[in-house]
Amino acid sequence: MELMIPLDGQGTVPMYEQIYQYIKKEIRQGNLKAKSRLPSTRTLAEHLKVSRSTTQLAYEQLLSEGYIESVPYKGYFVSAIDALVEVQEHSTGLFVELEVEETEGIKVDFSPRGIDLNSFPYNTWRKISKNILVDDNKALFLNGDPQGEYALREAIRSYLHSARGVHCGADQIIVGAGNEYLLMLLSLVLGPDQVIAMENPTYKQAYRVFESQGYQVVPVEMDQSGLDVGMLRRYPDREREPDLAYVMPSHQYPMGIVMPIKRRQELLAWASEKEGRYLLEDDYDSEFRYKGKPIPALQGMDRNGRVIYIGTFSRSIAPAIRIGFLVLPLKLMAVYKRKAGFFASTVSRIDQNILYQFLTEGHYERHLNRMRSVYKAKHDCLMGELKGFEPAFWIAGEHAGIHLLLTHKKGVPEDILVDQARKAGVRVYQLSRYFIHPEHNQYPSTVVLGYANLTEDMIKEGCRRLREAWDLEH
Amino acid sequence: MELMIPLDGQGTVPMYEQIYQYIKKEIRQGNLKAKSRLPSTRTLAEHLKVSRSTTQLAYEQLLSEGYIESVPYKGYFVSAIDALVEVQEHSTGLFVELEVEETEGIKVDFSPRGIDLNSFPYNTWRKISKNILVDDNKALFLNGDPQGEYALREAIRSYLHSARGVHCGADQIIVGAGNEYLLMLLSLVLGPDQVIAMENPTYKQAYRVFESQGYQVVPVEMDQSGLDVGMLRRYPDREREPDLAYVMPSHQYPMGIVMPIKRRQELLAWASEKEGRYLLEDDYDSEFRYKGKPIPALQGMDRNGRVIYIGTFSRSIAPAIRIGFLVLPLKLMAVYKRKAGFFASTVSRIDQNILYQFLTEGHYERHLNRMRSVYKAKHDCLMGELKGFEPAFWIAGEHAGIHLLLTHKKGVPEDILVDQARKAGVRVYQLSRYFIHPEHNQYPSTVVLGYANLTEDMIKEGCRRLREAWDLEH
Repeated sequence: MELMIPLDGQGTVPMYEQIYQYIKKEIRQGNLKAKSRLPSTRTLAEHLKVSRSTTQLAYEQLLSEGYIESVPYKGYFVSAIDALVEVQEHSTGLFVELEVEETEGIKVDFSPRGIDLNSFPYNTWRKISKNILVDDNKALFLNGDPQGEYALREAIRSYLHSARGVHCGADQIIVGAGNEYLLMLLSLVLGPDQVIAMENPTYKQAYRVFESQGYQVVPVEMDQSGLDVGMLRRYPDREREPDLAYVMPSHQYPMGIVMPIKRRQELLAWASEKEGRYLLEDDYDSEFRYKGKPIPALQGMDRNGRVIYIGTFSRSIAPAIRIGFLVLPLKLMAVYKRKAGFFASTVSRIDQNILYQFLTEGHYERHLNRMRSVYKAKHDCLMGELKGFEPAFWIAGEHAGIHLLLTHKKGVPEDILVDQARKAGVRVYQLSRYFIHPEHNQYPSTVVLGYANLTEDMIKEGCRRLREAWDLEH
Repeated sequence: MELMIPLDGQGTVPMYEQIYQYIKKEIRQGNLKAKSRLPSTRTLAEHLKVSRSTTQLAYEQLLSEGYIESVPYKGYFVSAIDALVEVQEHSTGLFVELEVEETEGIKVDFSPRGIDLNSFPYNTWRKISKNILVDDNKALFLNGDPQGEYALREAIRSYLHSARGVHCGADQIIVGAGNEYLLMLLSLVLGPDQVIAMENPTYKQAYRVFESQGYQVVPVEMDQSGLDVGMLRRYPDREREPDLAYVMPSHQYPMGIVMPIKRRQELLAWASEKEGRYLLEDDYDSEFRYKGKPIPALQGMDRNGRVIYIGTFSRSIAPAIRIGFLVLPLKLMAVYKRKAGFFASTVSRIDQNILYQFLTEGHYERHLNRMRSVYKAKHDCLMGELKGFEPAFWIAGEHAGIHLLLTHKKGVPEDILVDQARKAGVRVYQLSRYFIHPEHNQYPSTVVLGYANLTEDMIKEGCRRLREAWDLEH
C-alpha cells in the first residue's frame, strides 16, 4: 500500500501531526480498511521524504489511540475499529477477530491447533453455569484456595488416577489458567538458571516459556522410541548437564511417537541418578488414541518423586476454558508452598466450579467418548484419502492425537509443498517450524496435517486439492 | 493433640505403615476432625519412640492421598474429607473452605481484605452469562487474543479514560488473571535483576511477587505526602539506584495517603531523568472516595511514557472474577510483544465477554455508584463509633478506600491491642504486617480496621467490644 499524503512543509502543524491526522481520517472514513497493512515507518519516510522519527511519531500516536496495531515481525495493521463500533452498537457480544495470518483463498485449513467444537455440550455447560450462579452461592465470588478449589483438585486427581494411572493426592495438584502460566509458576519452584532438555521438534510454546525465564534449553534428538536418553548424558561441548527433561511420552508433539516402556524406564533411571533432576511430563492429548491400549502416564511409574506432570482441558474440552493443572512431587510441592504459595489462583472460582460439576457428573467422560469417535471417524477418513499419497509420501503419527505427518520421499522442500498447497487453496504446515534451531534441522521434508476442525467433506476436498497441487494424479 | 498409636514392633507391617493406617482410620471415622492440627513429625516420633523418618514416611503417604495437608509454617492439618464426600454426594457445587487462620470465638472481623457482596448484581451477571453461552457463540470457546479481547480492552480504555484520566490506546492494555499474574508478566518485560523501590508499608503481595522474581526490593519511607522522592536518589550504602518505583498515589495501601499533585510531579521528574526508569502505579481501589474530588491517575500526567498502570476488578466487582489489567507505555508494549506476546490470555474468553457486556451496558457504573453509597454509609457509621476512641487513638485514612487506621497515642504495642481485641471476640490487624522488614519498623503502634464486609450492626457491636477490650469506657 502506498500512502499519498499531502504534506505542508511551510505551515505550523508539525509533519508527524499531519501524517497522523491524514491516516486517522482515512481510517475513520473507511478508506483504509481494517486489517490492511500500512507501509513500514522506513518506507513511508523515504516515500514522503521526511525523517524516520517523523513517521515513527505519527505511528506511535495512532497506536496509542488504537487506530493501528503493531504485530511483531509483520508490521502495522489498521485496527478493526468499524467492527468494534458495530459490536458496541448492537451489543451482540461478538468480538472482533484479529486474524493476522493470510487466510485469503484458503478453502481447507489442516491446522494442527484446531479442535472440533461442533460436538461440545453447550446445553450442559450452560445449565451447569446457570445453576452455579444462584444468589446464595456468594462465596464463589470471594477468593478461593490459591492451588485451586479442593473439590476440583480431588475430581482431577480421581480422573487422572483412573484414566491415566497418575498417583498423587489432591494436595499435589495446582490448578491454573493454562499451560504457559503453569510453566511460569513451575519456574518459580525450580528456581533460576535451569538447563532444560527438550525433544526436538517439540511444543514451541513451552520452549518459549523456558527461554523467557532465562533457562538454557538443550534440544535432544529423538529416535523411533522418542527422546534419546543417552544424549542426556553426553555433553562434551557444554558446561552443564540438563536439570530437567521436558517430554511427551504418551504422544510426542508433533512427531506422534509413543514412548515404549523400556525408554520410559531409562528416562526415570536418568532422573533418579542425581539429586535435583526431574522429568516434566506433558500429557497434552493423551485422551485420543486409535490403536493399541492406552499407556499410563510416566508419572504413575515413578517411585522416586521425579516426575512433574502437566495437563490441560484445552484440547479435551475447549481452548478458551483456560484450565490446566500441574502435579508436583511432594518435595517440589513444599518448595511451591514456600516460594509461590501466595499466588492467588488464576482461574475464577465460578469456572472451577463449572468444571468440577462437569467432571463429577459424568459429562466429561461422555464428552471424551463422543470426541474419540468423532476424531476417529475423521482420522479414518483422512487415512483413506492419504492412500493416494503413498507413492510420494511416508505417513506417520497415525495412532493417536489429531494430526498426521507426511514426509516427502524425494525430499521436495517443505516451503515448496506448503506453497503449492496454498495456491490450491489448502493450508498445511511445515514440520521445521516445530524445531528448536530450525536452521540446523536435518529431518527430511515433512508437512503436518491437523484434521480436528474439518468435516469429512472438507478432508476429502482438501486431499483432492493436495493431490492436484502435488501432482499425485496419474 | 497427642496420638496414642498402638504399634506392633514384632509384626511384619512396617512401623510407618501402622502409623499411616491408624491416622487414616481415625480421619475416616471422624475421630480426627477436619482442620485439626497433627503433631509435628518430630513430636510424634519422640512420643512413639520411633525414628523421625518413620513418621515422615507415614505423613507423606497421608499427604499424597489427600488425608492431611501441610500448611507452611503452621504444620499438618486434617483435610476436610467429610465435607468433600458430602459435597460429592449432594452435588451442591459448594466447595470446601480451607480456613487456616483461627476463627474460633471471633464475632466481628474487621478484615481489610473483605468486600461487600450483598449488593452484587447476581441477576445481571447471571443474565449476561446465560445470553453469552448460546450455541452460536462457538468462537468464544476458541483461543482469543493473547492480550485479551480487543472489544474488552477498548471498553476498559474508555472507562479508564473517563473515570481515571488514563491516556492510552486499547493496544496498550493487557488483560490477565489477577495482579500477581500480571506482575509476573511485567517482570518478563522488565527483564531480570531489577531494583524496585516500594513504599513502606505496602501491598505485600506485590512485594512477594518481586521477591519471587529475584528482584531487589528497596523499601522507601513515606511522609504525609507519600513516598519520599528524595530517598529514591540517596543510596550511599547501596550499589544500584532503583529502576522502578511501585506506588499507590490514589490511595496508598495500607496508609491511606493520597499523594498530592506536587509529589506526583516530583515522581514523574525522577522517572524521566534517566532512560529505563519507570513508575508502576497501582490504582487498586481508586473507585471509593468520601471527601474531596477524585484525583486522576498519575498515568494521565505522564508525558514521557514512564508510567506503567495496573488495575483490577477484584475490589470493585468481586475477587473471584480474576480479571485485572496492565497498561504499558508504548516502548514497553513493544518489548512485551517481543518477549511475552506468545503467552495465551489467562482469562477465559467467556468471562471476558461477560465483563465486556457488564462494562458497556452500564452495569459497572451503576454497581460502582451503589457500592460507593454502601461503603460511605459503613464508613460514616464506623467514623461515628470511633469518636469514643479519640482520647486514646489517632484515626487516619478516612477519606478513601474501605479501611481505617487507629494509632495508639501512648504506644501500647500492636500485638497487645490485637490480643485484647481477640479475647473480646474481635479481629483487628497489625499495621506492622504490611511493612517490608517489619523488624526495623519504627512506626507508632497502629491497627488496621476494614469494614467493607460488615453490616452497620456488626460495626457497632465490634466497636462496643473494642471499647471494652481497650478500656475506653469512662
